[in-house]
Amino acid sequence: MTDYPYWEDVKEGDELPPLTKRPTTRQLVRYAGVSGDFYEIHYDKEFAISTGLPGVILHGALNSAFLGQLVIDWMGPRGVLKKLGCQYRGMSKPGDVLTCKGVVTKKRLQDGEGLVDCEVWVEDQTGRKFTPGWATAALPVRAAT
Amino acid sequence: MTDYPYWEDVKEGDELPPLTKRPTTRQLVRYAGVSGDFYEIHYDKEFAISTGLPGVILHGALNSAFLGQLVIDWMGPRGVLKKLGCQYRGMSKPGDVLTCKGVVTKKRLQDGEGLVDCEVWVEDQTGRKFTPGWATAALPVRAAT
Repeated sequence: MTDYPYWEDVKEGDELPPLTKRPTTRQLVRYAGVSGDFYEIHYDKEFAISTGLPGVILHGALNSAFLGQLVIDWMGPRGVLKKLGCQYRGMSKPGDVLTCKGVVTKKRLQDGEGLVDCEVWVEDQTGRKFTPGWATAALPVRAAT
Repeated sequence: MTDYPYWEDVKEGDELPPLTKRPTTRQLVRYAGVSGDFYEIHYDKEFAISTGLPGVILHGALNSAFLGQLVIDWMGPRGVLKKLGCQYRGMSKPGDVLTCKGVVTKKRLQDGEGLVDCEVWVEDQTGRKFTPGWATAALPVRAAT
């Protein structure tokens, strides 16, 4: 079983274990269905090109969801994702190999909660960074258990 | 209000009012979601072409559903669609203008129900017929009201 971190185990500058995602056209279609965002740039190649895009691209919110998974996978079931935000800068497409990364920027105790602020982002197979974001995780505090 | 037919109003050889459908890539993506059929030939143009198709095509079951709508629209709310079947012969693509057509082939009374058998099919904008099918409608019987 994975050892999920306690608040005490974490220090500023720590990197989160990277999460690799390989989005497919099928994932985009499924995401259109669950999100209700049926804008054609996410599945209709000809339409996407007609808008000036190179082809179909991921929903920005799907990249954001990947970042949420990055933090959740790292925290484990005892952690709580208190905050997640990002900017939809840059884009990605089916076939890309996306690596979600994060680094701890700040630790703090607040009302007995062990909070960890992180910078998070996505990189593609060329090393290009996009969807810069931030997350706050509440980790279990060992002193309190 | 539309006058929906009673069983007595119908005779063999009658044509059902045609139903026109203009499927879009968005409709196919929505249909993938509701049907659970996420095969890529229905939304991924490159994948579709790689399988030898000219491009993305409609789900066969979506053409079939159009035929169901043809009969239901004709029957109105007092009718019951007792049976619907078709063969997935031929195919259609987003951008086609599809006309669903039907003709009454047989009338019969069975256990007090006024049944109407129909031949149904879809035609595209070139007049090509495909998705040949059959339907049985139970219409309200005037004598019984």
